[in-house]
Amino acid sequence: MALIEAFRQLLGGTAVLTREEDLAGLTEDWRGRFRAAALCAVMPSTTEQVAAIVRLCVAHETPVLPQGGNTSLCGGATPSGQGKPPVIVALTRMRRIRSLDPVNNTMVVDAGCVLATIQDAAAAAGRLFPVSLGAEGSCQIGGNIGTNAGGTGVLRYGNTRDNVLGLEVVLPDGSVWDGLYALRKNNTGYDLKHLFIGSEGTLGIITGAVLKLHPLPTAEAVAWLAVDHPQKALDVLGLFQASCSTRLSAFELMNAKQIRLVLEQVPGRRCPVAEIDTWHVLVELSDTGDAAALATTMQTVLEQALEAGLVSDGVVAASEAQRKAMWLVRHGVSEANKKAGVGLTSDTAVPVSTVPAFIDQAMAAVRAVVPDLPFVIVGHMGDGNIHLIPFFSFAEWEAMPERDTVAQRIRRAMNDVASSLRGTFSAEHGVGRTLTGEMSRYKPPVELALMQAVKQAFDPQGLFNPGRVLPPPPIATS
Amino acid sequence: MALIEAFRQLLGGTAVLTREEDLAGLTEDWRGRFRAAALCAVMPSTTEQVAAIVRLCVAHETPVLPQGGNTSLCGGATPSGQGKPPVIVALTRMRRIRSLDPVNNTMVVDAGCVLATIQDAAAAAGRLFPVSLGAEGSCQIGGNIGTNAGGTGVLRYGNTRDNVLGLEVVLPDGSVWDGLYALRKNNTGYDLKHLFIGSEGTLGIITGAVLKLHPLPTAEAVAWLAVDHPQKALDVLGLFQASCSTRLSAFELMNAKQIRLVLEQVPGRRCPVAEIDTWHVLVELSDTGDAAALATTMQTVLEQALEAGLVSDGVVAASEAQRKAMWLVRHGVSEANKKAGVGLTSDTAVPVSTVPAFIDQAMAAVRAVVPDLPFVIVGHMGDGNIHLIPFFSFAEWEAMPERDTVAQRIRRAMNDVASSLRGTFSAEHGVGRTLTGEMSRYKPPVELALMQAVKQAFDPQGLFNPGRVLPPPPIATS
Repeated sequence: MALIEAFRQLLGGTAVLTREEDLAGLTEDWRGRFRAAALCAVMPSTTEQVAAIVRLCVAHETPVLPQGGNTSLCGGATPSGQGKPPVIVALTRMRRIRSLDPVNNTMVVDAGCVLATIQDAAAAAGRLFPVSLGAEGSCQIGGNIGTNAGGTGVLRYGNTRDNVLGLEVVLPDGSVWDGLYALRKNNTGYDLKHLFIGSEGTLGIITGAVLKLHPLPTAEAVAWLAVDHPQKALDVLGLFQASCSTRLSAFELMNAKQIRLVLEQVPGRRCPVAEIDTWHVLVELSDTGDAAALATTMQTVLEQALEAGLVSDGVVAASEAQRKAMWLVRHGVSEANKKAGVGLTSDTAVPVSTVPAFIDQAMAAVRAVVPDLPFVIVGHMGDGNIHLIPFFSFAEWEAMPERDTVAQRIRRAMNDVASSLRGTFSAEHGVGRTLTGEMSRYKPPVELALMQAVKQAFDPQGLFNPGRVLPPPPIATS
Repeated sequence: MALIEAFRQLLGGTAVLTREEDLAGLTEDWRGRFRAAALCAVMPSTTEQVAAIVRLCVAHETPVLPQGGNTSLCGGATPSGQGKPPVIVALTRMRRIRSLDPVNNTMVVDAGCVLATIQDAAAAAGRLFPVSLGAEGSCQIGGNIGTNAGGTGVLRYGNTRDNVLGLEVVLPDGSVWDGLYALRKNNTGYDLKHLFIGSEGTLGIITGAVLKLHPLPTAEAVAWLAVDHPQKALDVLGLFQASCSTRLSAFELMNAKQIRLVLEQVPGRRCPVAEIDTWHVLVELSDTGDAAALATTMQTVLEQALEAGLVSDGVVAASEAQRKAMWLVRHGVSEANKKAGVGLTSDTAVPVSTVPAFIDQAMAAVRAVVPDLPFVIVGHMGDGNIHLIPFFSFAEWEAMPERDTVAQRIRRAMNDVASSLRGTFSAEHGVGRTLTGEMSRYKPPVELALMQAVKQAFDPQGLFNPGRVLPPPPIATS
């Protein structure tokens, strides 16, 4: 085929994959939930090659699917199976750290750099790149930026968006926007960077970025608290914010069932407090300066919380080993839930002040669909981002009639409650292909129309990652 | 005229200004540099009225000029004198604080709220709204957002953009986008909010906003340092960042001439260090927690800087009165410069690491235009944002032949150097009408084309603040 031949001429044979066995890891997502054919996959090494690839795709009216580490949770990075099979543009070979400026606190990277590589390079220069998430060993920064990834650093450092100063993007017409500004202030027209961040490959292909670095924290303090209701956790959060300001770097909420699943399913985990049957909070402070001052602050706030009756038990980690052990419980969550049964994960965020109401109302709404259903709850409470997980044993789920319909009704019930509190159905995972229906349901038509106008202005042929982010326009019924 | 009559019917007579004497404060900017006719000014009280006004303007094909506190430094908020005289939409009557949520750390405000009113309301609730700038007693938050205002809080808290979570905007077709989300995380499609922030009224009228609040600092430490070169100031900045992280809330650089002008022109100001003929740095730390710890930190870093030979003298303010006295010197800058002569202010930003090179190179470039010209220098060094001010006495300036040409060549010389260091010609003041030529000169055509595409998508009739931000498309020469 002419297009594939042109790619081979442009990139050399090893950079063009067409055989099914070579494409397997790129046409299916890592959880094995989505799979569809691609025309081929190409692996450019330079921005100029990406631009040339795009121009060829445009000339052949063939869809373009940018792919990073293929770790999307929403089917955003694999072919959709609708329309013409796309060309997958895998950024894997573009993994150069172009430069690092410790005085300006910035680094310039290729989009294909793995997140962990970037974190390591920053640390080697005595700096922190604060975006951190479960997939960091394989996800690529271009994908993190394209989806505005969240993770555990958001409370203190913001989302990926807040840690990007500039971008290089190959546009849908094959031209290159060099927006690699490394500036803290720049008020010269529309902020295009923020438009590409979170656009999930529908407006262009991010090929490079200027990242913002931070001072490397030299002190940490971690505590585990038992509270008897999310409202009390919220009150404790307020105490920490008032006393610690940006030193508060994590405030994670888990319910008793979540802790129990981790203890049952993941070897070597221990509950840090005596009583399991309560709500649990992991709180972390981090700072430059010495650890002793930070430990004192942690102790002081914890005493305030105990005196105010907000906390029924609390343990401060006394060593690096104890800190790690506490985090291991939190990080055991995904493995435990996967082993224990079927959880219908949600990714809602609501205003922080409404988290307790959200939990109560959403649980009630789901139990109106399936009475007495248990919930696993784990969330970044400081961000208002709660993963409320209605949870089935494998046997219950197998025995359930009309599972798809039930799952759909359960998700709708949770998202409807989030929406009624002016929250969102996708806090950190993005839209991808799985949530375009939610876009139609929850977004005001005016907002959807603006997004469609942007898409039309940037990608009039509609070739970039079609079927993602935006719902198809409503079908006229005349 | 039909349009004015329709406004009177819609809003009542007192909300429609047409007489020249009533319009005087709205058709001329506060510095008296720009003045042109408007068709009329309207003062809506509600978002619905703004929407109705826009629909009437569209029907009459009449330009729309949103106006806040009219404190633009770039002629962005007053009529341009080109094309049809616009309708000024003054947001003055929309000054309600709609709500404040101390637990979510957000407040929702009308766009016409004066910035100082917002700061006060936040403080009354024990919270900080960190945007702070010279015009805060009269500028309105809608204008701050429309221009992504900078100011003295940027080093720690970011630009206005970083302190806005949601927007309500009346669009160029008269519809209303209710994007008043109060969420820390929300990955559901393109981030439209960031497109409106900094768009200077060319894409719609901001009528309301959700603002991000922070813990109110309870401790402050201020010091005044003498350094013999900007490079040493930069090294000191690095020490403070490593030790203090986000506690560093200001790092302001001034040269000897700037200090001398303040002492000469503004009564009651004193230089905090013995020697004037040096470079000066005002550094501020702020934090929650107690002041003693912060004072110790300040003292420790200062000793490091003295030992390393980076600082030739340094004074830590020992009282609130001394802290204020130091800030009064910094805040005396505008008044002093205005009284002392004619300064051709620039608003460049460059990567922080290149500030010393920028100062050296830009001074040399300007002195190639006017030999031996003195410079006043004052800047937010921590942001890379230096106001380099070639300075004339009134007599010299009066005697200068072809002043406009000289001024233009001087500005170009400074901006060319900033551009060569990958910096910007407008760090915090915006583009308005005065800098559209710089947009043509310094922005890559690809970037301008994307901005034009956005403008076309949002405002196809081109009625919103025409002639601002974007340069006119090049005239075809065939």
